[in-house]
Amino acid sequence: MKFSTEELIEGIRSGNKRLTAKAITLVESKKAEHRAQAEELLKEIMPFTGNSIRVGITGVPGAGKSTFIENFGRLVIANGKKVAVLAIDPSSSINKGSILGDKTRMEELAKEENAFIRPSPSSGFLGGVANTTFETMMICEAAGYDYILIETVGVGQSEVLVADITDVFLFLKIIGGGDELQGIKRGIMEMVDVIFINKVEKDNLQKAKNTRQELKRALDFIPPKEKGWKIPVLLGSALYNEGLDEVYTKIDEFIDLKKKSDRFKEVRTQQAEKRFEYWVQEYILAMMKRSSSVEEAYVQHKKNASAMVSNPSTEAKLFVENFLSKD
Amino acid sequence: MKFSTEELIEGIRSGNKRLTAKAITLVESKKAEHRAQAEELLKEIMPFTGNSIRVGITGVPGAGKSTFIENFGRLVIANGKKVAVLAIDPSSSINKGSILGDKTRMEELAKEENAFIRPSPSSGFLGGVANTTFETMMICEAAGYDYILIETVGVGQSEVLVADITDVFLFLKIIGGGDELQGIKRGIMEMVDVIFINKVEKDNLQKAKNTRQELKRALDFIPPKEKGWKIPVLLGSALYNEGLDEVYTKIDEFIDLKKKSDRFKEVRTQQAEKRFEYWVQEYILAMMKRSSSVEEAYVQHKKNASAMVSNPSTEAKLFVENFLSKD
Repeated sequence: MKFSTEELIEGIRSGNKRLTAKAITLVESKKAEHRAQAEELLKEIMPFTGNSIRVGITGVPGAGKSTFIENFGRLVIANGKKVAVLAIDPSSSINKGSILGDKTRMEELAKEENAFIRPSPSSGFLGGVANTTFETMMICEAAGYDYILIETVGVGQSEVLVADITDVFLFLKIIGGGDELQGIKRGIMEMVDVIFINKVEKDNLQKAKNTRQELKRALDFIPPKEKGWKIPVLLGSALYNEGLDEVYTKIDEFIDLKKKSDRFKEVRTQQAEKRFEYWVQEYILAMMKRSSSVEEAYVQHKKNASAMVSNPSTEAKLFVENFLSKD
Repeated sequence: MKFSTEELIEGIRSGNKRLTAKAITLVESKKAEHRAQAEELLKEIMPFTGNSIRVGITGVPGAGKSTFIENFGRLVIANGKKVAVLAIDPSSSINKGSILGDKTRMEELAKEENAFIRPSPSSGFLGGVANTTFETMMICEAAGYDYILIETVGVGQSEVLVADITDVFLFLKIIGGGDELQGIKRGIMEMVDVIFINKVEKDNLQKAKNTRQELKRALDFIPPKEKGWKIPVLLGSALYNEGLDEVYTKIDEFIDLKKKSDRFKEVRTQQAEKRFEYWVQEYILAMMKRSSSVEEAYVQHKKNASAMVSNPSTEAKLFVENFLSKD
């Protein structure tokens, strides 16, 4: 990296978008020397983080996420705030074009002085689902962005990852052709805090209301994550800027509720702990994989376990004893 | 243990309930010498495992789980099968009395030659949620039990544990006083394969039907775990032996469906892999905790991460490097 850590930090803190982007590229890099500088940078900016509202956004392809983010982002800016847009996309090799990488999207938002848009990161530097979206968010917070919108295309475990690093989780729904099940992935309803039924216009308003009714019924069986919060099901059209105010207000109300009950801080602390545990596992796994004999042993023991040749716990014990005695 | 591994295995294989119980006690023991014998025993019986139908059963206290298991277990026996009843109860210190430990329950079932009832295990030998229910199940399978019923009181993560080691997950529901949300824990609806509304009698039949209708609507939003399976919502009374046949049939149908699509084997393989990974983590954690300095370091780094003094990933890296270089 041709920029020093000091230059990058100054760039981030002064709102220089180019240097902010450079810092994110550094954090996303898999190279060992970049990792060292990235760790240094992250350590220095930590005191300036934590002051944003972190919003997770999900929905099936076609739900209108990009249009929503474009116009909702502009609404955030109209309210005197700065907005950053990130994406978690574990299958970036396939979907990169369809998410934020698509240059024709969010054109208007991208022009805004107070907006920062970052396309999907490459997959995690340790392989697997490891990714650096959390670290990118830290940089955006240090750069003074008040709202961080994190989009997920909803592949694999990406919603869980997003829910694990955000304060509020928004689900964009489109009106199904009678089959309301369509497009709701297992587990989503357990994560959501606010639902927005998008693409509602005059000619499908009644259908939208029915969908809302069905969703509300379903929600009766799913306790909300936060006590005292009734998950709102809002109708609107992101394209025509209808209903976005309501989303903004509901997010505000939700954050207020969490702050009043101290759950805001509590959840963030839990998230950081979880993230620490996650990374401990990732680093242990990465270290194990450096030795091919250890990795082979892992694969073999796991195979024995899954074929039920012997008890999974016995295989795990044999492996760990073997692995730890070697180091 | 005053019995040799050979004696225990012979006892298990010949259907000796006393020796089967001794073997389970051995597997549950935390003592190092017992662990060694337990591993040996588990290895030997492995070829005789895998042939049961593993049924997870959950529901709030008061849903009638004990009565259900008593009469459902007798139905299983009436169908010419052998049944074993186990329990996962992570909070056994508090709830032991309320679950299978209660001697007055399942009296009739306990008398049956072809039934084996095992009260809650003590908490895991490695601490935390680690437990030996899976290993106990292996012993019961080697002893020739065709159905293993695993009850959970639904505290903490216990349903996830049960869902992770069973083939079919049954949810007992009672009719709520209009508030159907009551008593459904977050995540349950995502795990369930069969729902049984219990304690249905003449005077609450209409209410029960309404509850079923509501549940069915909610299920429309929750894709079933298995393709082609519509989660049945059955009505009945475990106490009066009403509707239990239907549960038995539905479980059979579900297992058939899974076997036909090869999902039965596939899921079991995934479960064994997951269990292996789980135990690898448990053993690594246990080894780490043997050294008080390593445990202190873990706690300190985690604290730094959760207080956001520095980045969780940085703290994790520091810890793992430190921990692995010491060994």
